[in-house]
Amino acid sequence: MDAAGLRAEFPVFARVAYLNAGTCGPLPGAARLALDEVVDLAEVDGRRGAYYDRFFALRDRQREAYAGVLGAAPADVALTTSTSDGVARVVAGLGLAAGDEILTSDAEHPGVLGPLLAARERLGVTIRTAPLAELPDHVGERTRLIACSHVGWVTGDVAPRFDGDVPVLLDGAQGVGAIPLDMGALGCAFYAGSGQKWLCGPVGTGMLYVAPEHRERLAPVALSYVGYADAARGLDADAIHATAQRFDTPALSAETAAAALASLDLLAGFGWDAVHARARELAGQLAARLREAGRTVGPRGETTLVAWEDPEPDATSERLAAAGVAVRFLPNTPYLRASVGAWNDEDDLDRLLAAL
Amino acid sequence: MDAAGLRAEFPVFARVAYLNAGTCGPLPGAARLALDEVVDLAEVDGRRGAYYDRFFALRDRQREAYAGVLGAAPADVALTTSTSDGVARVVAGLGLAAGDEILTSDAEHPGVLGPLLAARERLGVTIRTAPLAELPDHVGERTRLIACSHVGWVTGDVAPRFDGDVPVLLDGAQGVGAIPLDMGALGCAFYAGSGQKWLCGPVGTGMLYVAPEHRERLAPVALSYVGYADAARGLDADAIHATAQRFDTPALSAETAAAALASLDLLAGFGWDAVHARARELAGQLAARLREAGRTVGPRGETTLVAWEDPEPDATSERLAAAGVAVRFLPNTPYLRASVGAWNDEDDLDRLLAAL
Repeated sequence: MDAAGLRAEFPVFARVAYLNAGTCGPLPGAARLALDEVVDLAEVDGRRGAYYDRFFALRDRQREAYAGVLGAAPADVALTTSTSDGVARVVAGLGLAAGDEILTSDAEHPGVLGPLLAARERLGVTIRTAPLAELPDHVGERTRLIACSHVGWVTGDVAPRFDGDVPVLLDGAQGVGAIPLDMGALGCAFYAGSGQKWLCGPVGTGMLYVAPEHRERLAPVALSYVGYADAARGLDADAIHATAQRFDTPALSAETAAAALASLDLLAGFGWDAVHARARELAGQLAARLREAGRTVGPRGETTLVAWEDPEPDATSERLAAAGVAVRFLPNTPYLRASVGAWNDEDDLDRLLAAL
Repeated sequence: MDAAGLRAEFPVFARVAYLNAGTCGPLPGAARLALDEVVDLAEVDGRRGAYYDRFFALRDRQREAYAGVLGAAPADVALTTSTSDGVARVVAGLGLAAGDEILTSDAEHPGVLGPLLAARERLGVTIRTAPLAELPDHVGERTRLIACSHVGWVTGDVAPRFDGDVPVLLDGAQGVGAIPLDMGALGCAFYAGSGQKWLCGPVGTGMLYVAPEHRERLAPVALSYVGYADAARGLDADAIHATAQRFDTPALSAETAAAALASLDLLAGFGWDAVHARARELAGQLAARLREAGRTVGPRGETTLVAWEDPEPDATSERLAAAGVAVRFLPNTPYLRASVGAWNDEDDLDRLLAAL
């Protein structure tokens, strides 16, 4: 499959220069077909027997596919509903208490800030912030967790390398599917990602990587039916899964698993290396062209996000939308953000620059 | 709409005597159409602008519809992904500690037992069990929470009335949509329910009622983007919703909201009083006919579940499935369970009894 072939799998490009995967990826036709097939089964035969057999098989494949994209073992991957869901499970499950400190950056998404706020209000944990690039210099004696973006959601900058013993939780919402990942090399304890952004799956899908050496230190606060290896053994602590599956959310469904997998299979068919390389190349092109056009581009790494300053970002994003160009205005920042994926092409960039 | 008209809205009845709403309700054709419409929008226009406008409107209506079925104000209802999700949020958010006790019944679903196990292992909370009917007699000085079924998932028995000051969390998985509810009269602090069972919605939907006088005592441990009234104010505790919306899960989607609402609208069109009355009447008929046939029916109230003893429940449930009759075998119990809804009819009961 070439780049044009990949692009043709996404109906949205028939009309829209869609550059908004940082919110939600474009949805391929294959995801729709896979979803339809499961809904057919649910509707006509009922959600029982064959439907659950299908679900369990899809869930296993979904976990394996996410593990592949993360560069991790499936046993270290929990299925969640979103990045925020994964972040919340980690922050709530570490047994933090008053006097403990969480270090975070000064440009985090509410999906990170919400659980931190909850930990502060509920447990008396201190939250300290610093610029993302400077975080390693701010780790203190009381820092029990570093929680920050892997790729910053505002401008696409990349977290620095953290050494030392303090566990790191990375918000991978703009990382997973967008850039090459290798959990072992990254060295984080926890990595939370989304299924609906750079993996082009449905809303309500996501994953949480838990490094094996941190698995026992993380309590499954929202343990549910799906976290049990043998649910009939109710209050028996040994009845829960030995793997990261104990952290699975109860919200998983055959419908979302089928749609998520169809998108993952499509991207894998194009090749993950090619997915990452093409997105990086196009995003780099866009950043360069914006600078040539006199725009101030926000600090970014070799990522898929390109943010530039605009005097009226809200109004401009609406004007662009009316011109069939989908980018995102980021409230309380001077930025407009384009999310560039392998499914985009030079024509999308031309349309964006022309409409600006 | 008469009963035959309601039944005709569910494609599954063309082939199956579907008596399994206690796992998942039958899915009406209208839910499929509503889902399709949203997926069309997501696929063709992208998940942005109009898609999010649709989502927010659907979410508001979904909350209102759930509130109606619960007999509660919308401000006291959070949108969750399942009963288990709601139960976990309450157990984890109450600030329980070592020395505290949770009282539960000896026949709870893993969706309740999982969070209790987590609280025991993580916080050192004591879990004490007693038969559902006798729970009020077991409330002790250290009991900080009573967590039990409103309607027991095994045999359909109903929780007793709890007086006193200990907050009560009811697992309403077999309650909401199945029997008439009035949160004020019920007097519980928390009520967790499912959207995919007696409300015939998609998997991944549910709700949590939080009595207004308990709202401030429950910390939103998994606070996320959707819990914020103004997400741009990140770590500002006053930026979160004043209502129970602060407990909303981040997994909500326009797709699931649309499908859930279509099912709710269908049932409301038949009339909730009629939904409840017809299900109760048919379930009572089935229990009486099973007893006439010499079967031992498990202890039940005026609910929609009918469980009866079977010497080989697993094998029998498979035999029934092969005969086009969907009931549930409950592992580690002697019971087969039929879930009887307003969408069933005498013919379903005849087929079940004939196949037995």
